[in-house]
Amino acid sequence: VSIAVKEFVWPVRVYYEDTDAGGVVYYANYLKFMERARTEWLRALGFEQDRLRREEGVVFAVRQIAVDYMKPARFNQSLTVSVRLTKFNSASLYLEHTLVNEVGEPICQGNVKIACLDIDSFRPKPIPKSILAELRDAD
Amino acid sequence: VSIAVKEFVWPVRVYYEDTDAGGVVYYANYLKFMERARTEWLRALGFEQDRLRREEGVVFAVRQIAVDYMKPARFNQSLTVSVRLTKFNSASLYLEHTLVNEVGEPICQGNVKIACLDIDSFRPKPIPKSILAELRDAD
Amino acid sequence: VSIAVKEFVWPVRVYYEDTDAGGVVYYANYLKFMERARTEWLRALGFEQDRLRREEGVVFAVRQIAVDYMKPARFNQSLTVSVRLTKFNSASLYLEHTLVNEVGEPICQGNVKIACLDIDSFRPKPIPKSILAELRDAD
Amino acid sequence: VSIAVKEFVWPVRVYYEDTDAGGVVYYANYLKFMERARTEWLRALGFEQDRLRREEGVVFAVRQIAVDYMKPARFNQSLTVSVRLTKFNSASLYLEHTLVNEVGEPICQGNVKIACLDIDSFRPKPIPKSILAELRDAD
Repeated sequence: VSIAVKEFVWPVRVYYEDTDAGGVVYYANYLKFMERARTEWLRALGFEQDRLRREEGVVFAVRQIAVDYMKPARFNQSLTVSVRLTKFNSASLYLEHTLVNEVGEPICQGNVKIACLDIDSFRPKPIPKSILAELRDAD
Repeated sequence: VSIAVKEFVWPVRVYYEDTDAGGVVYYANYLKFMERARTEWLRALGFEQDRLRREEGVVFAVRQIAVDYMKPARFNQSLTVSVRLTKFNSASLYLEHTLVNEVGEPICQGNVKIACLDIDSFRPKPIPKSILAELRDAD
Repeated sequence: VSIAVKEFVWPVRVYYEDTDAGGVVYYANYLKFMERARTEWLRALGFEQDRLRREEGVVFAVRQIAVDYMKPARFNQSLTVSVRLTKFNSASLYLEHTLVNEVGEPICQGNVKIACLDIDSFRPKPIPKSILAELRDAD
Repeated sequence: VSIAVKEFVWPVRVYYEDTDAGGVVYYANYLKFMERARTEWLRALGFEQDRLRREEGVVFAVRQIAVDYMKPARFNQSLTVSVRLTKFNSASLYLEHTLVNEVGEPICQGNVKIACLDIDSFRPKPIPKSILAELRDAD
C-alpha cells in the first residue's frame, strides 16, 4: 500500500476530444487527466467514490489548484500522470501531479488541495477513518 | 409564444474549448450547442429546468439523435442554432436543430427525440401539462 | 487482423468529467467514448492518425451519426465500447458502436459514417490504399 | 478603452454540459468560463485571436494558473466572470478572474499567466505592439 499512496502513476492517451485548434491539449483538460489519476489512486487504495457517496455520505471536492504548464502535449501522445500525497489532515488531502510524455519530458505539474464534504450540504466533513488509516499506514 | 415554439434561434460563439487539433469544432461539441439552444427555447417558453426538477420531479433526456455534419465550424466563428418543434405527444418532444455560420452556410443539422423522465427512477413520466398547453397553443 | 477489423472492444471508465447534474453520463460524451474506441481500433489495425496526417495528408471526419440512448451510464461504471465495420468504400467507412455496462446491459448504440478528407482543404480524398487493403483482407 | 482593460465582465450560463454528478459545475469547466471571458475582453479591446494567428503568427497560451474554489455553482445558474489585468510586460499578461453568482456570492477566483507564443514553434514571441499600446493607454 505504501507505494501506491506515495507514488502512483496512471497512463492517459491524448484523443481529439482533448485537443484544441492550437494543435495541443486544451489547458483545462489536463485537470481531467489529473482527476482520472486521483480516482484510480483512491481505487488502488481500496476506495470507490460511488461507495463513499452512498455509504459514508461524502464527496471529495477540489478547493485549490495551481498548475504550471511547461510543454504542450499533442494529439495521439501517450502521457503518464503521477499522484503524490504531500500532506493530509482529517479535513484535507494535498496532492501533487506531474504529467510527462513518452520521452519523459514534463508537460505540466499541478498541486491540488482536496476537501472532504458532506454530499448534501457541501459543508466540510471529516475524511472517513478507513481512508485516514490507509494514508497513515503509508506515512 | 407561437413564434418562440415554432422557430427559435440562439447564438453560439466558437471558443478554443470547442475545437480540436483538426482546427475545427469537435463533433460531439455540436451536441452541446444544440442543447444550449433547447434550454434557452424552454426558458423563452417560460420553463426553467431546475424548477421542473424541483417542482415537477421531471427531467428531459435525449433518447435519439441523428446529426448530419455538412461543413466544419472554426475557432472564433459566430454560429446560430435553431430549434424547431416538429412533433410532440405526452411523452416525447421531437426537435430539429440547424446550425449556420455567419454567412448563412449550414454547418450541421440534428434531429433529436427527447423523453420526459422521472428524476429518480429515470422511467418515462408524462410531460407537465403546463408545457403541453404552451406547445399546443402554438400549434 | 480480421477479428480486430470485424469486432473490436475498448474499455472506458466513467469519471466525474463525463457525467452531468442528472447523475448520468452527459449525452454528448458517449460520442467521445465511441471515438476513443475507433482510434484504438485503427491503432490495432496498425494505423496511427498522427502519422496519417503527416505522411498521407488525410484526416478522418464524422459525416453522419445516429445514436440510440437506451439506459444511462453512471459515475464510476466501467463500460465496454465495441467497433464493428459494417460497410466501406474508397471514400467512407461505416461503423457501428455498442456500449454496454459491467453486467452486459446496453447503454447506447451509434452508427457513424466517416469520410476521409484532405487535411488542408477538408475535401474528400480516397482512403489510403494500405488501410483499404487491411479492411479488404478481413472481409 | 481603459475601463475595458481594467475591469471587464462576461456573463456565463451554466448548462448540463458544465455540471457533473455531484450536481455542481465540474472543476475544470470554470477554466473554460475564464477563457471565454478573456477572449471577449481581447475582442472588446479590438483584437480577434483568429486574426492574430493569421496576421501576426502568434497565439496566447496559459503558462500558469491558480484557482481558489469558494462555493459551487449549479445547473441553470447565471454567473458573471470578470477579467482584470494585474500586470503585463512584452512577453506575458497576468490576469485575475472572479466568478460570482446571481446574488453576488463569489464562486471561484483564478490568477492566470499568459504568454505570447510563435504559432509554429510554440516558443515565446513578443506581444504584438498594437496590443501593448492598447494596454499601456489604459494603464
